[in-house]
Amino acid sequence: MTATIIDGKTIAAQLRGKIATDVAHLNAAHGIVPGIAVVLVGADPASEVYVRTKAKAVAEAGMRAIDKKLPVTTSEAELLALIAALNADPAVHGILVQLPLPPQIDSHRIISAIDPGKDVDGFHPLNVGRLASGLPTLAPCTPLGCVMLAKSVRPSLAGLEAVVIGRSNIVGKPVAQLLLMENATVTVAHSKTHDLPAVCRRADILVAAIGRPEMVRGDWIKPGAIVIDVGINRVPGKEGKSKIVGDVAFAEAAQVAGAVTPVPGGVGPMTIACLLLNTLRAARALNGLPALNL
Amino acid sequence: MTATIIDGKTIAAQLRGKIATDVAHLNAAHGIVPGIAVVLVGADPASEVYVRTKAKAVAEAGMRAIDKKLPVTTSEAELLALIAALNADPAVHGILVQLPLPPQIDSHRIISAIDPGKDVDGFHPLNVGRLASGLPTLAPCTPLGCVMLAKSVRPSLAGLEAVVIGRSNIVGKPVAQLLLMENATVTVAHSKTHDLPAVCRRADILVAAIGRPEMVRGDWIKPGAIVIDVGINRVPGKEGKSKIVGDVAFAEAAQVAGAVTPVPGGVGPMTIACLLLNTLRAARALNGLPALNL
Repeated sequence: MTATIIDGKTIAAQLRGKIATDVAHLNAAHGIVPGIAVVLVGADPASEVYVRTKAKAVAEAGMRAIDKKLPVTTSEAELLALIAALNADPAVHGILVQLPLPPQIDSHRIISAIDPGKDVDGFHPLNVGRLASGLPTLAPCTPLGCVMLAKSVRPSLAGLEAVVIGRSNIVGKPVAQLLLMENATVTVAHSKTHDLPAVCRRADILVAAIGRPEMVRGDWIKPGAIVIDVGINRVPGKEGKSKIVGDVAFAEAAQVAGAVTPVPGGVGPMTIACLLLNTLRAARALNGLPALNL
Repeated sequence: MTATIIDGKTIAAQLRGKIATDVAHLNAAHGIVPGIAVVLVGADPASEVYVRTKAKAVAEAGMRAIDKKLPVTTSEAELLALIAALNADPAVHGILVQLPLPPQIDSHRIISAIDPGKDVDGFHPLNVGRLASGLPTLAPCTPLGCVMLAKSVRPSLAGLEAVVIGRSNIVGKPVAQLLLMENATVTVAHSKTHDLPAVCRRADILVAAIGRPEMVRGDWIKPGAIVIDVGINRVPGKEGKSKIVGDVAFAEAAQVAGAVTPVPGGVGPMTIACLLLNTLRAARALNGLPALNL
């Protein structure tokens, strides 16, 4: 058996196209340009690359990116003051604070200070709670992307067994909530799980969000399963260069799974597309416009 | 095999004893009497019985019960005004609004209006979010009681397979969060789950929160499992009288399980004890005193 490769790049491009269309309409009909503030404290090279990629995608969707670069010595009070200013700015519909933050700043305090209506990362406790309660909310981007990719091959996930490996607040737990909202039977497995391979073999949908290169082997996968690989791990490659691999041993998985996301080109592109989607949703909601169903 | 019967009544009485001791200390050392406002809108007989039971337990623990009975015709604005007054009242440390509310009142709006620090039911979206994020918070009472009962027979739940049947915001989802915090591998099953008996048979800890009398049969239970029965269902009994049964067929379960909670006398008494515990925790936190570990 050879799995369908779930082409996250193409699916993300389609979603971004739909978003750009609605953004153009929003501007033409209401004079609104969705704006997202991306706050970067310090000069972490990986974060800088990521912020540039975001800015490019934001511009391509017809939105406005407001980049805020602060020195690594920024105090918590200074960052809170910036958040307050962005909360009050009507041109800003989304606020994203790039994590991690330097040690003098309490991330929880910063995230809780963001207006929940502008929290396009979906990390504010109020939005986490609304998601956990099944209420409409801004859900975290990577989990949203995972579920969209699963649904691209199987439009209804109802009644399927889903296993999520990893229980982070950023991926594992919110993706479990979203899968539950899709009526899947959802198991959250983690480092304390006994016989993880056996638990994974129950899964019709397996979401790997562990952060360990190629940990999920082919014989962990139920034949025909949908495998969503959230991992982005840099490992040594050929000729002294490094390469990026996921949490799933892709070549093995492709022999067993019904469908599998590649790394790169799977979940990654969807995360940025879902950030645009959340910004659009926030801009509509903040302007009292009805929700979109993209 | 005959299961250990988990005596919720005795375990709850022990917990209430510890709470009463700390309440007495709080009063002696700091002049604080934890106060809980119980708000009842309308005259539902079952709710009235429940409110009376709560008031008795509150008094026995040395706390102050502030009962607020409102007519069934109360408007949302009137109830919101009462909540605002209770939020502002320093003698009130816990606010509990008895559900369901009459149809002219939006429950979500009321719950969201309660000061999260006084939300002893743990239903405020901010507290739901804090629980889902693994942050310290006021967790819902029935789920707290379920986990305490499971831990009364098995102090560490780490690595065990837990299956929760039911995904309500009041029981199923928060108990899943608490079990995950105990490092169990947690599955949430529900009405859309395929082959529910087979999923249940995986469970080392089975929590039934379905609301259907004796739905969980003996052959759904893994030999030796801990079974926590959240159901409270009134069914016809002998001589035209009614009786209360759980979601688990108790006599069958007792032949297979390692331990099982009875109904009544299992989860029920723990719910009220945990309400007292949350009120005590809220009173300590609102007064800047360190958290207790009871």
